[in-house]
Amino acid sequence: MVKIAVLGFGVVGSGVVELIDINHDKIARSAGEEVYVKYILDIRDFKDNPYENRFVKDFAEIEKDPEVSIVVETIGGARVAYDFTKRSLMAGKSVVTSNKELVSEHGCELLEIAAQHNVSYLFEASVGGGVPILRPIISCLSADEIEEVYGIVNGTTNYILTSMIKDGVSFDDALKDAQRKGYAEHDPSADIDGIDTCRKMCILADLSFGKNIAPASVPTQGISGVDGLDVAYAQKASANIKLIGRTVKLPNGKIISYVAPHVLLKDNLLANVDGVFNGVVVRGNATGETMYYGKGAGKLPTAAAVVSDVIESAKCKCGSNLISWDMAGDEITGEVNDLSDRWYIRAEIDADEASVTFGDIEVLGSDGQGTAFITREMTGYECAEKLENINAFAVYRVLGNNA
Amino acid sequence: MVKIAVLGFGVVGSGVVELIDINHDKIARSAGEEVYVKYILDIRDFKDNPYENRFVKDFAEIEKDPEVSIVVETIGGARVAYDFTKRSLMAGKSVVTSNKELVSEHGCELLEIAAQHNVSYLFEASVGGGVPILRPIISCLSADEIEEVYGIVNGTTNYILTSMIKDGVSFDDALKDAQRKGYAEHDPSADIDGIDTCRKMCILADLSFGKNIAPASVPTQGISGVDGLDVAYAQKASANIKLIGRTVKLPNGKIISYVAPHVLLKDNLLANVDGVFNGVVVRGNATGETMYYGKGAGKLPTAAAVVSDVIESAKCKCGSNLISWDMAGDEITGEVNDLSDRWYIRAEIDADEASVTFGDIEVLGSDGQGTAFITREMTGYECAEKLENINAFAVYRVLGNNA
Repeated sequence: MVKIAVLGFGVVGSGVVELIDINHDKIARSAGEEVYVKYILDIRDFKDNPYENRFVKDFAEIEKDPEVSIVVETIGGARVAYDFTKRSLMAGKSVVTSNKELVSEHGCELLEIAAQHNVSYLFEASVGGGVPILRPIISCLSADEIEEVYGIVNGTTNYILTSMIKDGVSFDDALKDAQRKGYAEHDPSADIDGIDTCRKMCILADLSFGKNIAPASVPTQGISGVDGLDVAYAQKASANIKLIGRTVKLPNGKIISYVAPHVLLKDNLLANVDGVFNGVVVRGNATGETMYYGKGAGKLPTAAAVVSDVIESAKCKCGSNLISWDMAGDEITGEVNDLSDRWYIRAEIDADEASVTFGDIEVLGSDGQGTAFITREMTGYECAEKLENINAFAVYRVLGNNA
Repeated sequence: MVKIAVLGFGVVGSGVVELIDINHDKIARSAGEEVYVKYILDIRDFKDNPYENRFVKDFAEIEKDPEVSIVVETIGGARVAYDFTKRSLMAGKSVVTSNKELVSEHGCELLEIAAQHNVSYLFEASVGGGVPILRPIISCLSADEIEEVYGIVNGTTNYILTSMIKDGVSFDDALKDAQRKGYAEHDPSADIDGIDTCRKMCILADLSFGKNIAPASVPTQGISGVDGLDVAYAQKASANIKLIGRTVKLPNGKIISYVAPHVLLKDNLLANVDGVFNGVVVRGNATGETMYYGKGAGKLPTAAAVVSDVIESAKCKCGSNLISWDMAGDEITGEVNDLSDRWYIRAEIDADEASVTFGDIEVLGSDGQGTAFITREMTGYECAEKLENINAFAVYRVLGNNA
């Protein structure tokens, strides 16, 4: 029997406890032994909860109990969670988490501490919720040089953009609707401004390239500036606007990471990842493109990813899981503007002028304000140079080939 | 340094040797040590090959060399490959393979032998080529009770069906084109008749449910009977005909597995998996549906999956990987006809008669021969009963909801 402690009894923590109950037999079969929740740490009281007698308020009780071999951290944030994670690892306990903030900010250090103490630090649930994506990168694409990873990894913004596309509503109305339905927080900024996407994208980049990419170093643009007009113009090219976190390794070894809305043409694998679903594309030099899709959030899907890590940790009797990445110097960071793509532009310019300036373009339409069009492939620098004396309302990179 | 032997120097075997050369550093980093090909077994001569001095013709040389800890079997078939795999495992060497025939026929026994000798038997490349699918099921969905797995897992038939859909050509012409382009064998029966799909589906079922599903027990229908007329009628419902291998676990524990052409409505996750690509959907009771997509075949994608298993095996210092399934009795096998779905039917009947017989239907069109329509959900028994006195040209299950 493997005894675990769950830190935090919120949505994910209570989901973990519930799932270990519901799928008890399957989990025991997968782990090779029973998984038993010995403690639940929470500062709140849970009277009449069936697990009432397992709640504790003092982390030291868990820390000092040698019977607890795995700690599940679902507290969130990077303060208390950081302290408890570090102390757990140093006490020789493996830690499993869904905490993308902590992993993206301190993963490199925590993995090192885990390795020193011959235990695991695992975080499949931190990206893509229930969608298996980290372990496929780590263990299934372990023979590939990863060249690019990009994805829709935030359900809230994808729900809002999908409403704008399907119902033709404005950003503000779509946000209000998402808040009413519980898909967006009262303070939605971490989602809307792309911060959550940025953290998840950093974790994907860390694991794909073996180098630490700090969230603070990643240019991040959210979706609050996305105009319904651009959503409608994109639709004329059968394309959808999606918030994408993307990280690319150039042949010279430089890594470019950024978060921004993109125009996805209909042949792109993520063009129809709608609503609260997530999708991630990984391109390896041997395997080519593979895609992973499913529910990016929710109590049980996220809990399932956490418990799969508990099982992995329980099975790994001989120490740590060999996941790690190096602290990287600035020299590995490439310039986003060096990256070549096609561009969606809506600017105060007529179609003929746009043609003269940008060469071969696909015009999506014109109105009183100007013209919307898609350009040929060019770097961000080249695009910015051409737009220097033009008033542009929207400039997005385009992914896909069909338009 | 981990020393390996590669059995068979065909497409996959030579791809493995090539990939270990191309991605040497990344593979060493992933495995924690260098991976070195010490022997290549092949009955043919390869003069002037850069690996010329590593070729051997006698398997006993590999079997007796204690330095070889991992054997890569890419011979194919279930005779010589079975013998060499068994002997390798019994000599204390882990075995990695892409051989779906051998795994689907003898995987249960070979995994048992591997466990007895504390080594691994791994076969990620046997299903979906480069698409990570087995390890996600085994280790990422290890906390889920799997309820259903279905997929497009044969690139040849999918290429042929995609040609029929996109170019409006007949099955015979599409097959000839696929043969010309090297996507179909001179004797294409293992693909066309669904045998390859059946083997892969059995491996997915074995791992998902922990019970051995023998290929011979699985009702298997190929694509040679798919008529261009049905492809065209399906298109009227924005639907595509695809060859699907499917395995479902009913709430009563019975497992239903079969291979057949299906009509996939456009909201189904696999409806647009085209050409030689593969896609697999897994439904777990906690995670819900996840989907995996990528190149299902090809030298380097398949080699990448094989080498990722070599790396996994090299990292697993403390014995076998705990994958196993039980030999199952007949009592777990459910009747395909018990499974409820909507149905695509083209039969010698007019639309009014079809309505009277089948109730609420969606008519896709009529011609001199009869009518094509999609029914409400019903079991295979109910569908067969209604068709008892009707001459039906095509009867396919429908997946998806949008029509």
